[in-house]
Amino acid sequence: MEIRDAVASDWPKIWPFLRDIVRAGETYTWPPDVTEEAAREIWMAAALPNRTVVAVERDTGGDTGGDTILGTAKMGPNHRGPAAHIATASFMVAPEHGGRGVGRALGSHVLEQARADGFRAMQFNAVVETNTRAVALWRSLGFEVLATLPEGFRHPVKGYVGLHIMFRRL
Amino acid sequence: MEIRDAVASDWPKIWPFLRDIVRAGETYTWPPDVTEEAAREIWMAAALPNRTVVAVERDTGGDTGGDTILGTAKMGPNHRGPAAHIATASFMVAPEHGGRGVGRALGSHVLEQARADGFRAMQFNAVVETNTRAVALWRSLGFEVLATLPEGFRHPVKGYVGLHIMFRRL
Repeated sequence: MEIRDAVASDWPKIWPFLRDIVRAGETYTWPPDVTEEAAREIWMAAALPNRTVVAVERDTGGDTGGDTILGTAKMGPNHRGPAAHIATASFMVAPEHGGRGVGRALGSHVLEQARADGFRAMQFNAVVETNTRAVALWRSLGFEVLATLPEGFRHPVKGYVGLHIMFRRL
Repeated sequence: MEIRDAVASDWPKIWPFLRDIVRAGETYTWPPDVTEEAAREIWMAAALPNRTVVAVERDTGGDTGGDTILGTAKMGPNHRGPAAHIATASFMVAPEHGGRGVGRALGSHVLEQARADGFRAMQFNAVVETNTRAVALWRSLGFEVLATLPEGFRHPVKGYVGLHIMFRRL
């Protein structure tokens, strides 16, 4: 597995799993019926200091066009101006490549990158409390739950559940 | 004092105090050097379900063009999709009209509007802890500090200070 900056030609391989994750409505605070154009704008149109990366299985014989995309992350400042020193990030792992550490690798990479970019801390604004694998992963990477918005997320099966704000210094 | 929906012709009267508040860098998580175009896009370009309102002294003889703008607020969903039932809002009061309840009137109006729009709660993402008048006002309107991001805001005089996340059910 390798993690590199995302390039425009990665998008057609990201969209199918990103779409399915968002449509499921269980983990992301996006409109479940997001259009491909809007999703690409949100995920890929990031100019510095925002960054979008992909975890790939490298096609050693070819260029990036042959890479298999295992997952993707985007990161950047959570607020602007006098609060721009705290980063935020979002993660998507392709379900067919789950369970092999892609999320952890992306998380570690993003933390390292945020440190290198000079951020002082990282904040996740909306971690669904029933997404217990994600919560456990972020805890194992040093994040704590700073607050839980009661009934902050409407889960399609479980109804209103809490939305964690998670945080760690860098 | 009256509170009404903002109209495009209000912007030239909003920009001078909005600009000064943002440039001071003490309360807002925007780039202090924000351009007028970017500021207008952030503040005024809101389509429903976002709303921008102004507190005005009505020019009883004329149309809205003669109104004196005392302050302004914008509101809308804090996240999208399955988390779109929690609102957020931002407030700006013209300094020359401070101390006469403009912020409280805007806050009360926004809470009523959010209830009428069907939101279940309201969240402020970034209330600078040294902005004690704002913190006290929101507390008096039923908000509590759900969490404080340590050193979340770089104050131009006081250095790194906490950034409150405030919340109330509707």
